Amino acid sequence: MSFQNPVFIPGPTNIPESIRKACDMPTIDHRSPLFGQILHPVRANVREILKSTSAEIFIFPSTGTGGWETALTNTLSPGDTVLAARNGMFSRKWIDMCQRHGLEVMIVETPWGQGIPTDRFAEILAEDKRHKIKAVLATHNETATGVTSDIGAVRAAMDAAKHPALLFVDGVSSIASMDFRFDAWGVDVAVTGSQKGFMLPAGLAIVGFSERAIAASKSAGLHRTFFDIHDMTKGYAADAYPYTPAVGLMNGLLLSTQTLLNEGMENVFARHRRIASGVRAAVSAWGLDLCAASPDLYSDTVSAILTPAGFDASDIVSHAAAKYGVAFGTGLGDVAGKVFRIGHLGSMTDVMALSGIATAEMCMVDLGLDIKLGSGVAAAQEYYMGSAKTVPMKDAA
Amino acid sequence: MSFQNPVFIPGPTNIPESIRKACDMPTIDHRSPLFGQILHPVRANVREILKSTSAEIFIFPSTGTGGWETALTNTLSPGDTVLAARNGMFSRKWIDMCQRHGLEVMIVETPWGQGIPTDRFAEILAEDKRHKIKAVLATHNETATGVTSDIGAVRAAMDAAKHPALLFVDGVSSIASMDFRFDAWGVDVAVTGSQKGFMLPAGLAIVGFSERAIAASKSAGLHRTFFDIHDMTKGYAADAYPYTPAVGLMNGLLLSTQTLLNEGMENVFARHRRIASGVRAAVSAWGLDLCAASPDLYSDTVSAILTPAGFDASDIVSHAAAKYGVAFGTGLGDVAGKVFRIGHLGSMTDVMALSGIATAEMCMVDLGLDIKLGSGVAAAQEYYMGSAKTVPMKDAA
Amino acid sequence: MSFQNPVFIPGPTNIPESIRKACDMPTIDHRSPLFGQILHPVRANVREILKSTSAEIFIFPSTGTGGWETALTNTLSPGDTVLAARNGMFSRKWIDMCQRHGLEVMIVETPWGQGIPTDRFAEILAEDKRHKIKAVLATHNETATGVTSDIGAVRAAMDAAKHPALLFVDGVSSIASMDFRFDAWGVDVAVTGSQKGFMLPAGLAIVGFSERAIAASKSAGLHRTFFDIHDMTKGYAADAYPYTPAVGLMNGLLLSTQTLLNEGMENVFARHRRIASGVRAAVSAWGLDLCAASPDLYSDTVSAILTPAGFDASDIVSHAAAKYGVAFGTGLGDVAGKVFRIGHLGSMTDVMALSGIATAEMCMVDLGLDIKLGSGVAAAQEYYMGSAKTVPMKDAA
Amino acid sequence: MSFQNPVFIPGPTNIPESIRKACDMPTIDHRSPLFGQILHPVRANVREILKSTSAEIFIFPSTGTGGWETALTNTLSPGDTVLAARNGMFSRKWIDMCQRHGLEVMIVETPWGQGIPTDRFAEILAEDKRHKIKAVLATHNETATGVTSDIGAVRAAMDAAKHPALLFVDGVSSIASMDFRFDAWGVDVAVTGSQKGFMLPAGLAIVGFSERAIAASKSAGLHRTFFDIHDMTKGYAADAYPYTPAVGLMNGLLLSTQTLLNEGMENVFARHRRIASGVRAAVSAWGLDLCAASPDLYSDTVSAILTPAGFDASDIVSHAAAKYGVAFGTGLGDVAGKVFRIGHLGSMTDVMALSGIATAEMCMVDLGLDIKLGSGVAAAQEYYMGSAKTVPMKDAA
Repeated sequence: MSFQNPVFIPGPTNIPESIRKACDMPTIDHRSPLFGQILHPVRANVREILKSTSAEIFIFPSTGTGGWETALTNTLSPGDTVLAARNGMFSRKWIDMCQRHGLEVMIVETPWGQGIPTDRFAEILAEDKRHKIKAVLATHNETATGVTSDIGAVRAAMDAAKHPALLFVDGVSSIASMDFRFDAWGVDVAVTGSQKGFMLPAGLAIVGFSERAIAASKSAGLHRTFFDIHDMTKGYAADAYPYTPAVGLMNGLLLSTQTLLNEGMENVFARHRRIASGVRAAVSAWGLDLCAASPDLYSDTVSAILTPAGFDASDIVSHAAAKYGVAFGTGLGDVAGKVFRIGHLGSMTDVMALSGIATAEMCMVDLGLDIKLGSGVAAAQEYYMGSAKTVPMKDAA
Repeated sequence: MSFQNPVFIPGPTNIPESIRKACDMPTIDHRSPLFGQILHPVRANVREILKSTSAEIFIFPSTGTGGWETALTNTLSPGDTVLAARNGMFSRKWIDMCQRHGLEVMIVETPWGQGIPTDRFAEILAEDKRHKIKAVLATHNETATGVTSDIGAVRAAMDAAKHPALLFVDGVSSIASMDFRFDAWGVDVAVTGSQKGFMLPAGLAIVGFSERAIAASKSAGLHRTFFDIHDMTKGYAADAYPYTPAVGLMNGLLLSTQTLLNEGMENVFARHRRIASGVRAAVSAWGLDLCAASPDLYSDTVSAILTPAGFDASDIVSHAAAKYGVAFGTGLGDVAGKVFRIGHLGSMTDVMALSGIATAEMCMVDLGLDIKLGSGVAAAQEYYMGSAKTVPMKDAA
Repeated sequence: MSFQNPVFIPGPTNIPESIRKACDMPTIDHRSPLFGQILHPVRANVREILKSTSAEIFIFPSTGTGGWETALTNTLSPGDTVLAARNGMFSRKWIDMCQRHGLEVMIVETPWGQGIPTDRFAEILAEDKRHKIKAVLATHNETATGVTSDIGAVRAAMDAAKHPALLFVDGVSSIASMDFRFDAWGVDVAVTGSQKGFMLPAGLAIVGFSERAIAASKSAGLHRTFFDIHDMTKGYAADAYPYTPAVGLMNGLLLSTQTLLNEGMENVFARHRRIASGVRAAVSAWGLDLCAASPDLYSDTVSAILTPAGFDASDIVSHAAAKYGVAFGTGLGDVAGKVFRIGHLGSMTDVMALSGIATAEMCMVDLGLDIKLGSGVAAAQEYYMGSAKTVPMKDAA
Repeated sequence: MSFQNPVFIPGPTNIPESIRKACDMPTIDHRSPLFGQILHPVRANVREILKSTSAEIFIFPSTGTGGWETALTNTLSPGDTVLAARNGMFSRKWIDMCQRHGLEVMIVETPWGQGIPTDRFAEILAEDKRHKIKAVLATHNETATGVTSDIGAVRAAMDAAKHPALLFVDGVSSIASMDFRFDAWGVDVAVTGSQKGFMLPAGLAIVGFSERAIAASKSAGLHRTFFDIHDMTKGYAADAYPYTPAVGLMNGLLLSTQTLLNEGMENVFARHRRIASGVRAAVSAWGLDLCAASPDLYSDTVSAILTPAGFDASDIVSHAAAKYGVAFGTGLGDVAGKVFRIGHLGSMTDVMALSGIATAEMCMVDLGLDIKLGSGVAAAQEYYMGSAKTVPMKDAA
C-alpha cells in the first residue's frame, strides 16, 4: 500500500505527523491519574472549540454515528416526535436511525443540494402548539452534497415559535473546521467525530450536551448502556471511563485541540475557507457546478462537483485511485454518479490542494470530459497566491 | 509520561512493536477496495482463532462493552428472559446492561472467586420447560477475580436440558490467549475486544455470531443502529462499513491475527499458561492465595492476589505506580481492597513477568507485609528455567 | 515544523512510510547474529543494484563525502596522481578532498552544465605512457547542475589507452535511481549514500570495491582507520562492525533495497525518467532552459533550471519555503543565483511532482517572472497522462 | 525480531519513546534555516552537558571512533608523540588508530581492570622536558572492563609537570551519564557518541574542542576532510553542514539534551549511580567480583562481572540471547571469556535492571554456576527500595 499522495476524501483527513505520533502511544493504566491528565484537558479544549462555556463533553470510543445514537437515546423516549429535513445522505441516515429507535420523524423532504428549509421549519414549529416535537435535528454540513446549513436560522425559527424542543446538531464535518457556536445557537446536543476537523483517525464520537439535554436524560426512555452519558459522567469523576477508553486517540485529541486553539479558531476557519475557495475557483474554471445550489450554502470542508449529464462521476473516483493513486470522495445516495467530491478539510495546504486539482483534471480529460488541462490549477493558483500569508498550519512540537 | 516499564494490568496489554506500527497508518479511502484487503482477511483470521468454521465476525469501532450490547440488541426483545451467574465485576456489568435494556435476568448469585455454577444452571434450564429463557450469558474469564469458567460445561448443561436458548459468551479477557471453541461449545455469540489477547489498543468490539444468532436477529425487538449486524453485513459486502471504520486498528488486527496464527494457537495458549504458572509460583512462595478458589479456575491471563485481612490491597497499586512507575490492576467491586491483580496476557515474556513480580515484592515489603524479597522471583525463575524453550513470541516482520 | 508538503530537494528525498518505520527500530545487540541477518542481505542487495556480481560492498555510518574518502584513502598514497574533470560543485569538492589528502590532481576544467569531456580524458590517458595517473575520478551525476555523464565512455577512453588506472565513480545522486553498471563499466570504486535513490535519511556511506581496488588497498599509503575497508571486512565476517553500526538505517536499507529489487531496477529507472520528463516538459512550457547543455546530459534525478539574467534564482527557493512551505534546491557554487533545482528522485509520484511544478509557477509569478500560471502543470499533466500505467511505487509490506 | 525485553548492553542503550519519535522525522531541507533551529541549540546543550562555557561542539554523522579520528587528525602531524595507557579494549583501539595515522605512542601498559596510572603519567610528563609529547589520551570509562579513570588526576599530573600537551578524553561511555568536567579538567578534546548517555541510535560522533585544540588545528599536518572541524565551522555559520547532516538524529539529540538538562545533570548522574549500585549489590550477593579492581574504579554505566575460572563467560551472553531473548555485553579482548557485562546506562529503571539481574541469575544457574536464584535480585531490591524516590526519568512530553 502506497501512502505517497495525500487523500482528498472528506474525512478521515490527512493526519499531521505530530498527531500521528501522539496517537501512537504505549499502553498506560487507563484507571490511573495519568489518564485524567489527558481526559480533562481534552474535554475543556473541545468545549472551547464548540464555543461553549457550559456544555458537558462526552467522548465515546465510537464514531459520529455513535454520537447520533448518544444524542437520541439519552434524551428521548419511544414514540417521541422529532423534526428533520432530509437533504442528503447523512440527514437521511440520522432520520433512519430515529425510526429504528421507535421515534416518529416529521420529515421535510428537501432537494439534495439545498440547505435546511428554515422557513418551513418555522411554520411547522409554529403549528406545533402542543409541543409534540421533542427535538429538532439539524445537519450542519451535509458531507454528501457539500452544503452548509444555517444553524442560527434554525434556532431563530425555534425561538420565533417559542418552541421548547431540543436542538440536536450533526457537526461531524463542520466542527473544528467551520464556525460552530454551541452557546450562541442554543444547541442542546452537538455531535462530531475524531476523523474530520480534529484530523485524527476514526474511532471517537465527540458530543456536547447542554444542561437542558442532560436534564432530559433523566426521563429519557430509550435504552442505552454503552452510550449512557451518566455512566460516563461517573467515570470521568474518577479519571476513568465505565469501560476501556481509546487512550491513544484521546492523547491525539489532546494535541489536536491544543494545536487548533493555539492557531486560533478564527484562523482555522479562515484557513479552511481559503483552501476551499481555491478549489471552487478551479471548479468554476472547469465550467462545472457544485451540487450546493448557491454560494451561501458552499461548504468549506468538502466540494461536491456535478459532472455533465450522461457521465458517471464515480468513474473519476475509481480512475484516480487506479491510475494516479489518489482518493476522491464518491457520490452517495441520490447524487451517486452525479457528483464526485474533493475533501479539503483537516490537514491540507495550498500545495496539497493543487495536486488534487491537477489530478482531477487529468482524470476528467482521461475520461473524455471537455476540460482544459491546467485551467483549474491556474485559477486556484491565482487565488492562493493572492491569499497565502505564510506557511500554513504548523504541527505542534 | 515515562513508558520505560511494561504494564501489568489485565488489558490493555503491552503492545508489540510491529503491531504499534501496523496501527499507526496513514489515511486511506475506507470506501475503496484497499480497505477490503484488510477487512476480509481480518474476519477470516478472527473466525479461525475462535475455532469456528462458520461464525460471522463483526468488528465495531467500540469496546467489549459495545460487544455485549451487540449480542443483546441484535437477538433479543424487551421483556425477554436471560440466565446469568453474578460472580464478578464483569458478569455484574453485563447483567446490569440486560436490565437497562428491559430484559428479565434470572441471576444466580455466586461467590466472587467461584466459576459459573453449571450444576445450578442445569437445574434451572431443566425446570424451564416453556423455554422462557432466551439466552444464557456466560463470562468465560472474570477479569476481576482471575477465574476461568468452564464454557463446555455450560453447553453440556444446556444440552442435557435440551434447551434451545442462545449461548452468549464474554471472552473479552480469554479469546486469543486461552482456548476458546466457538463451534465445539455451541457458542451463539462470542464477544471480545482488541486490547487483550489481540494486543492492540482499545477501540474494537469483536464479535462472532452463529447462524442461530443471526436468525434470531430477524425478530429481535431491541433497538439498535450503531451495533446493527445487518447494516454491517451490507457494508462488508461492499468492502466497507455503514460508517467510518477504525482502519488503523483493523490493520493492526490483521497483523496481530496473522502473528498469532503463525505461532499456532495451541502454542499461544501454552505460552500464556507458562507465564501465568510462573506468576502463580511466586504468589505461592509469598504465602498468599489467589482469589480464584481452586486450581481448575485459575486464569491464565490475570491473577487476582488476595492480601492479608486488614491490609488495603489498593495501596500496592498506587504505591507501585508512584514509586516504581509500574501499573498493576486494582481490585474491583466486591473485592476492592482485598486483591491486587497482575495481568500476564498479551505481549509478555518471562523476563517482563519477573520484573513485575520483583516490583510487587518491593511494594509489599515497603507497605509492611511479611514477604521475603526475592522469594517470589526465585520461585518464578525456577519455573521459567524449566519450561522456557527459546526466545518467546516473535514480532512479525 | 510542518511536514505536510513533500520536499523537492535533490536528496535527502521524501521517505516512504514503510522505510521510515523500518529505520525506527528499537535497540538490538549489534554484536549478535541478529545484526548479521540485516547486514549480509543488505550487502547482497546493494551489489545487485550496482549490477555487479563481485563487488565488495562496504557501508559506513557516514555520508557520501565519507564514501569519497573511503575510495581515496584505501587505494592511494600521498603524491599519487589522479585525473578528474571539474564541472560542478561535487566534482570540485572531491578534487578538493584529493588535494587536501596530498594527491596530485590533473584537473580538466569543464563548463558547468557540461558532462565529463571523455575525448579530452582519452587524450590525456593516451599521453600518460608511464601510467602516472593512478585513478580516474568521475562524477556520474552532478547534483548541482543536473548533468549525467557517460561513465561507459570514460571506461572506453581508459580502455582505448590501455590505461591501468583505477576508475572511481561518484554515484551519490544516480545509484538506485538511474542505470549504473559496476561490472560492465569496469568501475573500481562506486560511492553513494543512503539519502538519495535509497530513500533513507542521511547517515550511510555506501561503497563498492572491485577486486583491483581491494588489491590496491594493500599498498595504499594514505592514513585511514574509521574508513578502513579491511577492518570492515573483519567485522563483517563476525556479523559485526569494527565499531557501532547504525542498525536502524541498515534495517531501512534492507527494506529499501528489497523494495527496489522487487519493483525491478529497469522499472525504477523508467519511473525516474518518467517523472523527470514531466518536470522537463514543464520547464520547456515555461520557456526556460535547463543548466544541462543538451538532452543527452539531462539528469533523471534533478533538474537545475536556469532563470533569466538579472534574476536571483535563490529567491525562488527562499520564497517557496516562506510562503508555501515547499523546499526546492538552491544553486550552488558557480551557478548560485542562476539556477534553482527541482529534485525528482526517490519517493515521488506524478501527483507530488505536479504540486512542486505548481508551486514553482506561483513563486516565479510572485517574483515577477513572465510565466503563465498552469502552463508548466498542463505540460507535465499531458506527459504524465500519456505515460502513467498504474499506481506508482508501492511500499513494501 | 522480538523487541519485548530491554537490552543490557553498554550501548546502544534502550531508547526512550519520545526520543525515538524525535529521530523518526520526515525530510526537511538541511540547507534551510529550519535546520539551524535544531543545530544551534543542540550544540549549546551539549556544551552545557560537558560543563563547559567555551568548548566548540562538532557533531559528525559518524560514531565515537570517528570522534577519535577527529581529535587526532585536526590537531596532530605525522610523527608526533602522544601518551596513553593501554588498560582495555577501547584504549587499545585508540592507540592502534594513532599508530595507523603515523603517530608515535608512548604506551603505559596497565592491567585490564585498573584505571589510568596517573602517577606513572606524572613521571613521564615530568621527564619529557622537551615536550615531545603533544597530546595525552585518556579513556574516561573503559567500556570493556567497567573501569572509570580519574581525569582530574590526569590533568593534575600534567599541571604538576607544567606540560603543555593537549588532553584528549574518550568520554564515549561516560558523557551524559557520569560527571564530566570539560573546563575544570582542562580537557582539550572530548569525544563521545549518540548511542550511550544520549540514548539515541548510533550515528553521531560528538566532540568538543578547546580553544587550544582549535589553535593546534591550524598547523596540524594529518590529512582530513570528512572530519575537518574548519569545514564544519563554516557550515554551521550558514545553518548547515559541509555535507548532508543526519537531521533526524540531530533532532533526537535536541530532545535528548533538553530532557537531560531538565532533569538536571547531577540528578542524571545520581540516577546512574543508583541503578549501578543495585547491580553491584547483586553481583556481591552472587559472590562474584567485578573486573574493576577497586570501588573507586567502578563504572556507573557498565559492570563487567568476572566469572569463576574455567567457565566461559561468553556462554552467558549467548545463552541469555537464545533462551531468554536478553542481550548482555560479552567480554572483549583480554577479558574475553572471563567477564560478561551488564550495561546500566541510558534509559533504565530499577524495574528494568531487576529483570536483567533475574535473567543473569537464571543463565548462570542454567549453565551450572553455583548461584542462588533470587539472591542478586533480593540484594538489588533492598538497595532500590531504600533509594528510590519516585518514578524515574520522565520522557519529555
